[in-house]
Amino acid sequence: IETANDEQVFAFFNEYHHADIADILEELSLEQATYVIKLLDSEKTSDVLIELDEDDRERILKNLSAKEIAEEIEELDTDDAADMIAELPEERQENVIAQIEDEEHAAEIKELLAYDEDTAGGLMAKELVKVNENWTVTQCVKEMREQAAEVTRVHSIYVVDDNNILKGRLSLKDLLVAPARGKIKDIYIPKVDYVYVDEDDEEVAKVMQKYDLEAIPVVDQEKHLLGRITIDDIVDVIKIEAEKDYQLAAGITQEVEADDSIFELTKARLPWLVLGLFGGLGSVFIMGGYEEALSTYKELFFFTPLIAAMAGNVGVQSSAIIVQGLANDVVKGSLLQRLLKEVGLSLINGIALGGLVIIFGYIMQYPASFTFTIAISMLCVIIIAALVGTFVPIILDKRGIDPAIATGPFITTSNDIFGIFLFFYIAKLMLGF
Amino acid sequence: IETANDEQVFAFFNEYHHADIADILEELSLEQATYVIKLLDSEKTSDVLIELDEDDRERILKNLSAKEIAEEIEELDTDDAADMIAELPEERQENVIAQIEDEEHAAEIKELLAYDEDTAGGLMAKELVKVNENWTVTQCVKEMREQAAEVTRVHSIYVVDDNNILKGRLSLKDLLVAPARGKIKDIYIPKVDYVYVDEDDEEVAKVMQKYDLEAIPVVDQEKHLLGRITIDDIVDVIKIEAEKDYQLAAGITQEVEADDSIFELTKARLPWLVLGLFGGLGSVFIMGGYEEALSTYKELFFFTPLIAAMAGNVGVQSSAIIVQGLANDVVKGSLLQRLLKEVGLSLINGIALGGLVIIFGYIMQYPASFTFTIAISMLCVIIIAALVGTFVPIILDKRGIDPAIATGPFITTSNDIFGIFLFFYIAKLMLGF
Repeated sequence: IETANDEQVFAFFNEYHHADIADILEELSLEQATYVIKLLDSEKTSDVLIELDEDDRERILKNLSAKEIAEEIEELDTDDAADMIAELPEERQENVIAQIEDEEHAAEIKELLAYDEDTAGGLMAKELVKVNENWTVTQCVKEMREQAAEVTRVHSIYVVDDNNILKGRLSLKDLLVAPARGKIKDIYIPKVDYVYVDEDDEEVAKVMQKYDLEAIPVVDQEKHLLGRITIDDIVDVIKIEAEKDYQLAAGITQEVEADDSIFELTKARLPWLVLGLFGGLGSVFIMGGYEEALSTYKELFFFTPLIAAMAGNVGVQSSAIIVQGLANDVVKGSLLQRLLKEVGLSLINGIALGGLVIIFGYIMQYPASFTFTIAISMLCVIIIAALVGTFVPIILDKRGIDPAIATGPFITTSNDIFGIFLFFYIAKLMLGF
Repeated sequence: IETANDEQVFAFFNEYHHADIADILEELSLEQATYVIKLLDSEKTSDVLIELDEDDRERILKNLSAKEIAEEIEELDTDDAADMIAELPEERQENVIAQIEDEEHAAEIKELLAYDEDTAGGLMAKELVKVNENWTVTQCVKEMREQAAEVTRVHSIYVVDDNNILKGRLSLKDLLVAPARGKIKDIYIPKVDYVYVDEDDEEVAKVMQKYDLEAIPVVDQEKHLLGRITIDDIVDVIKIEAEKDYQLAAGITQEVEADDSIFELTKARLPWLVLGLFGGLGSVFIMGGYEEALSTYKELFFFTPLIAAMAGNVGVQSSAIIVQGLANDVVKGSLLQRLLKEVGLSLINGIALGGLVIIFGYIMQYPASFTFTIAISMLCVIIIAALVGTFVPIILDKRGIDPAIATGPFITTSNDIFGIFLFFYIAKLMLGF
């Protein structure tokens, strides 16, 4: 393909949807991708750039001049434009903004850049359709035609007063069935959900999901209409949040993908492994302290991986359920109720598993005292592990720390050490070595 | 509140959004909740019922007659109606459908019930706005007003021919700026994304996300327009999928929540714990086989939890990255490349961690041969665990099995046993006991 002339390449790519072009570009070399981006119209390439992986986009933008980037930015909605500019080095940001011809667009992007990316302000776009409550329906339709030409998708029509204060909304459906005469004031719906500009993006996602909204207006503390957030941005928030939690649970510290470089993957994985190593070295010490049991109860030491695995598995299960419950706001009831429930649950699980251990001990012809020691100490380890797995996330959440960090290696490692310690401690008490 | 008279309760609840009423009902007793549902208008309660937790809804519906349920169903869109009916016992389903007065609605619901719930057909609703390509714009607007009255949200207007075959779409924005005269044939957009009715729901989610669609038409093999899927249904698919993967990774076998009963939680958690127990008992056997090393190298046994933890952690990290990559279709390149990459990655991690072990051994004044045995066998365990974690999901995926089951306890347990076996095997080779 790349040996063909410009026209052929242009014709080839122009046929495709921008999301597909982005897929193709990710397979090409940097030079080839830059060449294609420069060749196509910026109306198309701006969308392609937004679809690209962050790393790929960064590399391509490095090869474009501030002027060329500004041309791409002109074609984008303000929210995407602000996201793209935010990724540039600071000095380039200013150069690019200075090159944007549409001054209003530039000013809006500058405004959006000021918001934290994890807030409603960081998600919102300035493009929206708004009408004044004092307009007539006819006037409104005329104005809307003009506004709609600039907005990719019309979701709701927001109604404001003369001071740009949000008063309500007009749905497109209402407009379709509305009589041509009459004032907006008389037909708009005054009940409208909105979010404040400094609201956390996960909160925005929850509100939009709960009320099944496809777009939500964003206001400041005085209810001035600032922008709107659409459901497609929320889909991204939900996906990224889910992936982050999943990766935390798997012991990966940062957003990585299978195709990232070995160096980036190591940076994301090694820290938790080092934590696990220190945990393991801790259990070396603990077992060393019970060395004297080796002569009479050497089998105790054969059971340590089992105890560690149980403590780890139970802890991860408990923490995963709680973390998910906290995220979905379904954790109700008092701490005491939860404590009793976890103890009850681990008693049932522990007794079932202890029963299996007793059967195993019988088959292996271990002394009964030894088998019961294993079963009872395992039961205790399971109860404690479940409590740690449940309450560490709750405590973190109460202190405003993301409880998801308490899933995965953190819980596994601490439960491993703690479980092995408890196991030997109870065994010593029961067997008396 | 519940001691008040009907009118007060009615007035109280009528003020609220249906999602908020659902939240309140979940806090009430079954009798109270049923009472409120019966009291309010079915226009409102049908939405409330859909928002409720599946278990709560089931309990309330049990207290309603087929006639009462049918009234709720009449108010719902076909997709929600079909979902709600599908949850009823089979014989009640037929009774309820027979009681629906609107025959067209009943027929549509029956049609939807026939589709598998994990397919496009299971997600779609029959409510949509469609126009014939042979109509004029004026005729079209008139027809649309009627259709729009039945559709909660108008996303796109689909264009069909006389045989109901999907030809393209008209965006609402186009309609706003279109001239009043002229035929639909001349102004519709022939490029339209669509999905087949038997497409998997996760695939539908991917297509809608990739092309940033808020609604997508569903067609049969001959491209007859059957229904449409909206983005809010896709948000649910994405969330449920993410939660399922997360729970699998945490060793929980089925969709449970923190507030489910102890019995349900046990059913979800115990199976993986039993698997972990058998794994642990397996390592008891393995270590028993190397009992003779106890006299000279007792510290080897102190290191088993460390080895098991490393094997487990590395395996989970590798599998989580691959499972996520497979889900997002970003796993590219040949199997050999991936093999080399994983080996390279685990070499780096393993050497770093081995270095720490050597420092530890030096501090503890272990013999150098012993320390190096630990470090080298740990390195081997890490490499093998990473390969198992990477390739088990890939193989499962190739065979059409959900690779997510290979995260969590499955990988941890098998890597535990395998790691401990490898550790002792290499130690025996190197130390010669």
